[in-house]
Amino acid sequence: MQRPKSSDELMKTLANLNGEIMPLAEVKISALDRGFLFGDAVYEVLRVYQGKPWLQREHFERLQRSLKAIRMPGIDLQELRKRVLETIAAGGFAEATVYIQITRGAYLRSHAFPAEATPLEFLYVQELQDVYRESRLSGVAVITHPDIRWARCDIKSTNLLGNVLAMQAAKEAGCLEALLYSPDGTVTEGTHTSLFGVKGDMVLTAPNSNAVLPGITRALVLRLAKSAGIPVREQILKKDDLGGVAELFLTGTTAEVLPVVQVDGRPVGDGCPGPFTRRLQQAYAEAVAAFVLGSVEPA
Amino acid sequence: MQRPKSSDELMKTLANLNGEIMPLAEVKISALDRGFLFGDAVYEVLRVYQGKPWLQREHFERLQRSLKAIRMPGIDLQELRKRVLETIAAGGFAEATVYIQITRGAYLRSHAFPAEATPLEFLYVQELQDVYRESRLSGVAVITHPDIRWARCDIKSTNLLGNVLAMQAAKEAGCLEALLYSPDGTVTEGTHTSLFGVKGDMVLTAPNSNAVLPGITRALVLRLAKSAGIPVREQILKKDDLGGVAELFLTGTTAEVLPVVQVDGRPVGDGCPGPFTRRLQQAYAEAVAAFVLGSVEPA
Repeated sequence: MQRPKSSDELMKTLANLNGEIMPLAEVKISALDRGFLFGDAVYEVLRVYQGKPWLQREHFERLQRSLKAIRMPGIDLQELRKRVLETIAAGGFAEATVYIQITRGAYLRSHAFPAEATPLEFLYVQELQDVYRESRLSGVAVITHPDIRWARCDIKSTNLLGNVLAMQAAKEAGCLEALLYSPDGTVTEGTHTSLFGVKGDMVLTAPNSNAVLPGITRALVLRLAKSAGIPVREQILKKDDLGGVAELFLTGTTAEVLPVVQVDGRPVGDGCPGPFTRRLQQAYAEAVAAFVLGSVEPA
Repeated sequence: MQRPKSSDELMKTLANLNGEIMPLAEVKISALDRGFLFGDAVYEVLRVYQGKPWLQREHFERLQRSLKAIRMPGIDLQELRKRVLETIAAGGFAEATVYIQITRGAYLRSHAFPAEATPLEFLYVQELQDVYRESRLSGVAVITHPDIRWARCDIKSTNLLGNVLAMQAAKEAGCLEALLYSPDGTVTEGTHTSLFGVKGDMVLTAPNSNAVLPGITRALVLRLAKSAGIPVREQILKKDDLGGVAELFLTGTTAEVLPVVQVDGRPVGDGCPGPFTRRLQQAYAEAVAAFVLGSVEPA
């Protein structure tokens, strides 16, 4: 059995494999699992606030779309939602993340779908490691990096090697994210976040397409902006635009709303988190507070 | 422990995990293995003829290039070659395939490379399931399918969901392979084979680039053609060219040299395997025979 490097954090996790709750370190995957051999798998990451999974409906709807796109029917998502709640409760988690991965199952290796394999339904809950706590206030530095990913980034699949290599480049540049750009200069998104920019008094983000993941937090922030009377438009940002924007920020399940204050070593605007970013961070925090206090999901 | 569906074929396999020989069904992968979570892994498939691995040097050189491209240093490839031979010997395999997969190891999930994880070195040997035996004589039917893969198909990574979906489309059309084409109409390769065409008296195949895997069998067939005085040129085939070619054939580690007699339901040439394809099949068989008899690898 392969064992992950031990780590204190591994103690603060709890897994659920096909309905059975167990320590994450004890989950054993077959070497013939198609998630391992082919990346034939999709996933989701949810945020848990005060023990309650946030934006559940949206995450499970996206999981359903991903499963449909790779033609993996027959997953009982209601049952999966139940397992998420049971695993959170079993571990007594408060501030946490939930990782869910569904694979097409284990079978002798051959590219086409196997007739008989049973999908693997794996999830684990992990106590929050909030790497963004300070940078939500101060803002983060990012790099730009070519987007070498496949043509279906709208599917949340585990084919993430392009994201991994770009994120590693960011890390080596002392940055917390890489903004990915296509050969035509379109900035699509980050390796694990969506991107927003402010030009004039308009908040912009790339429209949904096959080239970007339809971010759950992105969609919430669009709704929050509209509620707050902040003008937003789904419009592509180009790499050449990044020098001229007044503000940039990232959104994501664990990043929440994260100011970007530097791109490729150059300051964004005056080099400080801007007023639109601040207002949207505030609106996001209020939506979370309403959820935590009253279990009210944002509209 | 997740178990793959049982199958007679699973009995005819033998695995080697980090140097330890064991039944394939007993290999257990950590759920935090980056091969499973991110497709952060590269692989090779070798053909074994009469107990001897074929084109070893070429496969291990390509593995080294793949490892370098995803920046995974420190794998002892000499040791890995030894394990391949030991595992073939331990199982007494004659006609077989060897699957090798190297992952960046298991660590708590985060996109950038972990500082501490130890790479996973996994391989298994499987008795040959020759699905092409009859079709090497009669030829195969194929479909064309959009190439939706990433921009680094020269790296033999396990990010194979684009290949899986295209191969499944081929299977549902009653075909044995899908020829992948880019938005500009360039036919790159098959989902697990390289493509050759014959136009006039010239054998053509796409030049190596980031868009295709540098096929080991492809390179051998190019050398065999030159030795046999067959004119070859590395030149792109377009989807529109496929209607006018005299011959088409695929090459691959298990496919060897495989005639294509139908594309999207239309016959290639006169609908039978053509003379260039036949001559190259013969040359390939002779090279294998020389290897089996005298352990002479082709030049």
